[in-house]
Amino acid sequence: MRAETTRPSLRQALLAPRSIALVGASDDVTKTSARPLQYLRRAGYEGTIYPINPRRPTVLGEKAWPSLADLPEVPDHAFILAPTEGAVEAAAECARLGVAVATILASGFAEGGDDGQKLVAQLQKICAETGLRILGPSSLGAINLHHKTIITANAAFAEPDLPRGGIFVASHSGSLLGGLISRGKARNIGFAGLVSVGNEIDLSLGEICSATLDDPAVTGYMLFLESIRHAQDLRSFALAAAERGKPVVAYKLGRSAAAAELALSHTGALAGEDDVAAAFLADCGIARVFNFETLLEALPLLQRLPARPAAARSKRVGVVTTTGGGAAMVVDELSMRGIDVVKPSDETYAKLTAAGVKVNHERITDLTLAGTRYDVMKAALDTMLSAPEFDVVVAVVGSSARFQPELAVKPVIDSAASAKPLVTFLVPDAPQALNLLAEAGVPNFRTPESCADAVSAALLRRKATALAKPLHDIMAKPTTQLDEIAAYALMNKVGVPHAPAVAVDINAASIKLPFAYPVAVKLLSAEIAHKTEVGGVVLNVGSEAELKAAMAKILASLKTHRSDAHVSQVLVQPMTSGLGEMLLGYRVDPEAGPLVLLAAGGIYTEIYRDRSIRLAPVDLDTAKAMIAELSISRVFQGFRNKPHGDMDALAQAIVAMSQLALDNNTVVVDAEINPLIINRVGEGVVAVDALVALA
Amino acid sequence: MRAETTRPSLRQALLAPRSIALVGASDDVTKTSARPLQYLRRAGYEGTIYPINPRRPTVLGEKAWPSLADLPEVPDHAFILAPTEGAVEAAAECARLGVAVATILASGFAEGGDDGQKLVAQLQKICAETGLRILGPSSLGAINLHHKTIITANAAFAEPDLPRGGIFVASHSGSLLGGLISRGKARNIGFAGLVSVGNEIDLSLGEICSATLDDPAVTGYMLFLESIRHAQDLRSFALAAAERGKPVVAYKLGRSAAAAELALSHTGALAGEDDVAAAFLADCGIARVFNFETLLEALPLLQRLPARPAAARSKRVGVVTTTGGGAAMVVDELSMRGIDVVKPSDETYAKLTAAGVKVNHERITDLTLAGTRYDVMKAALDTMLSAPEFDVVVAVVGSSARFQPELAVKPVIDSAASAKPLVTFLVPDAPQALNLLAEAGVPNFRTPESCADAVSAALLRRKATALAKPLHDIMAKPTTQLDEIAAYALMNKVGVPHAPAVAVDINAASIKLPFAYPVAVKLLSAEIAHKTEVGGVVLNVGSEAELKAAMAKILASLKTHRSDAHVSQVLVQPMTSGLGEMLLGYRVDPEAGPLVLLAAGGIYTEIYRDRSIRLAPVDLDTAKAMIAELSISRVFQGFRNKPHGDMDALAQAIVAMSQLALDNNTVVVDAEINPLIINRVGEGVVAVDALVALA
Repeated sequence: MRAETTRPSLRQALLAPRSIALVGASDDVTKTSARPLQYLRRAGYEGTIYPINPRRPTVLGEKAWPSLADLPEVPDHAFILAPTEGAVEAAAECARLGVAVATILASGFAEGGDDGQKLVAQLQKICAETGLRILGPSSLGAINLHHKTIITANAAFAEPDLPRGGIFVASHSGSLLGGLISRGKARNIGFAGLVSVGNEIDLSLGEICSATLDDPAVTGYMLFLESIRHAQDLRSFALAAAERGKPVVAYKLGRSAAAAELALSHTGALAGEDDVAAAFLADCGIARVFNFETLLEALPLLQRLPARPAAARSKRVGVVTTTGGGAAMVVDELSMRGIDVVKPSDETYAKLTAAGVKVNHERITDLTLAGTRYDVMKAALDTMLSAPEFDVVVAVVGSSARFQPELAVKPVIDSAASAKPLVTFLVPDAPQALNLLAEAGVPNFRTPESCADAVSAALLRRKATALAKPLHDIMAKPTTQLDEIAAYALMNKVGVPHAPAVAVDINAASIKLPFAYPVAVKLLSAEIAHKTEVGGVVLNVGSEAELKAAMAKILASLKTHRSDAHVSQVLVQPMTSGLGEMLLGYRVDPEAGPLVLLAAGGIYTEIYRDRSIRLAPVDLDTAKAMIAELSISRVFQGFRNKPHGDMDALAQAIVAMSQLALDNNTVVVDAEINPLIINRVGEGVVAVDALVALA
Repeated sequence: MRAETTRPSLRQALLAPRSIALVGASDDVTKTSARPLQYLRRAGYEGTIYPINPRRPTVLGEKAWPSLADLPEVPDHAFILAPTEGAVEAAAECARLGVAVATILASGFAEGGDDGQKLVAQLQKICAETGLRILGPSSLGAINLHHKTIITANAAFAEPDLPRGGIFVASHSGSLLGGLISRGKARNIGFAGLVSVGNEIDLSLGEICSATLDDPAVTGYMLFLESIRHAQDLRSFALAAAERGKPVVAYKLGRSAAAAELALSHTGALAGEDDVAAAFLADCGIARVFNFETLLEALPLLQRLPARPAAARSKRVGVVTTTGGGAAMVVDELSMRGIDVVKPSDETYAKLTAAGVKVNHERITDLTLAGTRYDVMKAALDTMLSAPEFDVVVAVVGSSARFQPELAVKPVIDSAASAKPLVTFLVPDAPQALNLLAEAGVPNFRTPESCADAVSAALLRRKATALAKPLHDIMAKPTTQLDEIAAYALMNKVGVPHAPAVAVDINAASIKLPFAYPVAVKLLSAEIAHKTEVGGVVLNVGSEAELKAAMAKILASLKTHRSDAHVSQVLVQPMTSGLGEMLLGYRVDPEAGPLVLLAAGGIYTEIYRDRSIRLAPVDLDTAKAMIAELSISRVFQGFRNKPHGDMDALAQAIVAMSQLALDNNTVVVDAEINPLIINRVGEGVVAVDALVALA
C-alpha cells in the first residue's frame, strides 16, 4: 500500500467515500456479492472502486485485487461481502490497514446464538482497539443518492433514476429500504440517503443519523425500527435534529398482543415493552406513525408543524370537504386517535357565509351544497386557515380531484402557504393531482387512515427533552431494597405524601401510637418485598391488644413462609381509604433512562393496560397530561356524580416522584407506590405502601 | 302516453331499465343536471332516454319532452334531477303514470329538519299508496356497467372505460362511489353495479342488494355504511347472499370516540352504538373491514374463505416471506387484531427442510437465508399450504416483486389454487406484479394494514344467522317493569340461576327466613328500578331485629326520596359473594332485534368499554366466544394464581338469557342482571339483582 490519504470523517467514510473496497466481490452476476460493483457503476460513482477477489484477476471486467493489503491506498470504506467467519477476518484486516468504515453484509452474528455472540464480541474488540467503525453486521449497506454512492447488495437499487431528494432513511430492516424507495418514487418523494443499520454492534442508528445532521441535502428523517437500541444515541440525534428543524418520523414494530403479553403491572418489568418505547420516542420529539405508508407521507406535514411543548395540548382539526363520506372517514380515524375535529366558531361560520361559502354549520364544512368550484373551495380554505380555533386544516377532495384538479385541488395548493398547516386527502385514485400536490410541497395522503395517522402524529409531537444527567450516573447496578420506613423517608425527600407510619418493636411491652386506631400492621423488612404473600399484613386493627395479636400472627406466619428472614419490627399506619387508588412508579430503564409511570392500580393496570409513561423528570403540565391519558382518571372526575378526586395533588406527586431522576446522593433504580390513595379535591393523595430499590 | 309496456321487476327498473326519463335534464353542460344524459350516451346505453324539460324543445341536441305525461310510453325508471320541492311533485307524477322506480337526486329531505321530514312523509305516502319505488332522496344514482346504464350525476362516471366486473357496491355516500370505482380501476377490480342509496326512505340498501342476488354477473358485494338502517332488510339480503356463496364486505363509519361517548353501561342504552352494529354485521355474516382500501381488496379472499360457524374459532395464519421486516409489519397488525401467527409444526418444519427450504424454525418462515428463488418460494408455499396448522397462508414479498416477479410472485400465483387460501402483500411499489396477481385472482394487498385487516375480517367472519322470529312479534311497545321477585321468576323460566329470594311484608310481626343470616334487604317494587338511589338497599343484616330495623330504614328513606311510591314488601336474600361479578343483559333493539350482552360489570363496563354483544339467541360456543372477548374474563381464568371461575356456568347463563328472544308468551324488551356473581369452578354463577321490562 503506497499512497497516503487523510483520514475521512464518519459521514464521508460512510456515505461519501472517496474510495470503496468490495471485499469478496463476485464475477458471477447472479450472486448477491456481484451486485455492489454493478450498482455503483450504474449510478456513476465518481470515486475509486477496488474489487477484492484473491481467486481472479478481474471481476465483471474490472481489475480485481488479491487483498486489501495490495491496494495502492487505504480505502475510505470497505464493503465486506464475505460470509460470516470470513467477515471477521476481513474486518480485522480493515482495522490493521486503517480503513475508516467497514460495512458487513453477512448475518449470523447478533442473531446467531452463542457462536454469533462470540463473533460480535470479536468485532467489538476490534473496533474498541483500533477505531475502525463497523456498519452492521447484517447490513444491506449505505446509500447516498446525491453522491452516487450505492454501497448495497439490495436488489431494489438496481433500477435507474432512483429518486433524489431530502430524506434520510435509517432502518433496522435492510429489505424495507427497497419498499420505501420504490413507494417513494411512485409518490415523487426523493431521498438523500438510506442506511440499513443491521445489528448495530458498533455504529448505532442514532450515530449514523447524527453524522448526516449538517448535510444541507438532508431535510428530514424516516426511521424504520424493530426495537429501540442504543437509545441515548437516538436521543442525542433527535435533540440535535430538533435544533436544526429537521423532523424525524418513525415506524416501530412490536405493538402487538404478543409483545403486550410481556406486560406486568410492576414498574420494574417494563423493559422491551412498546409503551416504554412510545414514551421514549415521544420525549425525543420523534413523531411515531402506525401505518406503514404514513412513514412515507408524514414528513411534509411535520415540516410545517413543529414539535410543541408538552403544555400545548390543543389538538383541534378543521375539515373542509367536497365529499361528506370521504371526510367522515378522516374524522372517524382522527377521533379514534384522540384528535378533536372542531366545528367552526360562530365567527368563522359568519365569515364563511360572508365569503359566499354556502354550508351548514356543522363539524365538517361540507361544500356539497355550494358545489365543487375553485372560488368556493378557496374561500372556505382561507377562512378556515385564518380561524384561531384550528391547529390544522384538512381538505378532503372527492371525485373532481381525478380529472379536474383545477376545481378543488388547485385551491388547496394556492392556500397551502398559510401560516397554519393545510393537508389533503384525495378520495379517488388521482395520480395527476397527487403529483401537483407533491410538487407544491402540500402534505397529501392516499388513505383516510394515513391522513389521520400523520395529523395525529404531528399534533401529538412534543418538544424533545434532554437526559437530565448522564445515564451512567443513574444506571442500575446491584440493588439494595429499602424497608418501608426508609422508602417513606425518601418519599419525604422528594415530596410524595405518604400516610403516617411508625416502626414498632415486635417484642414491645406497651405501645403508644401517635395516631388513633384502627390501624394497619405490616412486617417491616428490606428482605421481603411482597408482604402479603408471607402473611405479613393485618388490616383494621382496633386496639393495643389486637395490635399485639397481629404482631404475633405476622411473626408466626413469617416462620412458616420465610423461616430464613429476620424481622424485628412492624410498621403501623392508620387505616386510610379515599375515593380510589392508583399506582405511581419510577424506574431507570437500562436503555431509555429514568421513567415515571402512572397506572390504574389493582388488577386493572394489567387487565386493561391502563397506564401512562414518560421519561423522568416531568413538569406539572406533563403530569396532568399523563393523568388525562388514563381511562381510570374519569372515576375521579365526577364520574356518575361521585366526588372529584384531588388531581392537582396527584399531578404534584407524579412530578415529585419523577424528581428521583435528579437526586445526586441517592441512586434509585426502582420505586413503586401501590396503592397511592386518591382523596377528594383539596384533601391530597397519600402513599400507603412503597417499595424502593437503590443502586 | 300511448304505448303499453309490461311492468318491470325491481331489478330491471332500477338497474336495467328499458327506458329512462331524465326529469329536469339541463341543456347547460356545466350543470349537474346535464350530466346523466351525457354519461348514458357516452356509455352507449341501448334503451330509450327521455329528457324532460318544459322550457326547451331540445336538450344537448336531443329532443326534450315537456312532461312525463307527454311521453309515448311509461318509462321504467325516472331520474328526478329537480330541486327538493319539485322532486316531490315529479315523484307524484311518476306514481300517477305508473313509473316503476324514481331516483331522487335532491337533498333536503331526511337531513332537512322538520320541513324535510314532512316531505319524506309525503314521498312515503306516495310509495305506500301507489307502489312507486323511490331510490333516495339524496341519491347520486344507480349504475349497471354490464347494461351500460349510468344513471348518475356523479362526475366520477364521466370517464370512459369504467372497469366492468363482478362487484356490486351499495353506499350511503354517493360521492364515495367515485373513490371506489377509480381506485378499483387502478387495481384491475371490476364492478357490476354501484348504487348510491341516499336516505333510504323507501328502497333500502338491503332490498336493493337483494334485487341483484340472482344476477349471475354479480359475484360479491361492497357496502359503504354510515350507519345501519332497515337492519332486517340487510339481514335478509346477507342471509340470501350467504346461501348463494356471494360474500359481502362492509366499511362502516362511526367507530370514533365521539360515537363511543354515547355509551352507557345500561343494556337499554345501546342503540346507535358501534358495537351493536358490529355484532349485527358479524351475525349477518358480513365481513367488516376497518381500512378504506380493504373494502376494495378483501373480496377475493372472502371468496376463497367462506364464513365459518361460530364454533370454528381457530384463527391461525402462517407467514412465508422474502423480507423479515415486511412480514413483521403484517404479523404485528394481525396480532393486534387477535389473529394468531403460528410457527410451523415440527412436522411441517421437517417437510420444509426436506423440500430444500433452508430457514430457521421460527414464527415467520423467512427465506432470506435461502435466497429469493422460484423453487424455494414454491416449495415453501406448497409445504405451508398443505400443513394442517394454518387456516390462511400469507406470502410477503420484498423488493424482487418490483422487477422480478418471476422469483417470488410467480410461485404465489402458481400455488394459489390450493384448498387453503393464500394471500400476498408486496412490500415495494410493484404495479406489474399486482396486475399479475389480480389477473390470477390471488388476494393481494398494498399495505400491511389492509392485508391484516382483510385476513382478520375473513377469519372472524361467522355464518349468517336468521332472526328467530319476526321482529314485529318481539318489538318494544310501551313497557311494564317487573319487580325483582317477578324478574327472578322469569329467570327461572329461561334457566338463569339466581340467589334465593323471599318477599317479606314490610309490617310483618315475625319473620322466618328459609335461609340463614346475614342477609341483604332490598325494597321490592316495580315502580323503582334504581333501589340504591332511594336508599332502598341494606346489606349484611345479621338478625331478625336488624332486619326489622333495615325495613324501617328503607321505608323512611323512601318517604324522603319517593313519597309517591307505594311499597309494601321488601326482598330478602342471603348475602352472596364470589370471585367477582359481571353484567348480563338482554335487549330488543328496534333495528337489530334481540341482543344479549356480557360486560365487565361495575364501573369497568363504562370506563374500559369491556363488553361483548351478539344477536340473540346464542349457542354455547358463541357464549364462550363472548366470554373470551372480555378482558375481565382473565380474572376468572387463573389470573395471578387466583382460583378459576365457573366459566361453563357463565356460558350457560348467557345462552339462557338469550333464550328470552324465543319466549312466545312473555315479550321481554329489556333485562339486566347486575351483578351476576361468578363463583369458583363447579359452583356456578348467580344473579343477585335483576331488572326486567316487558312489552
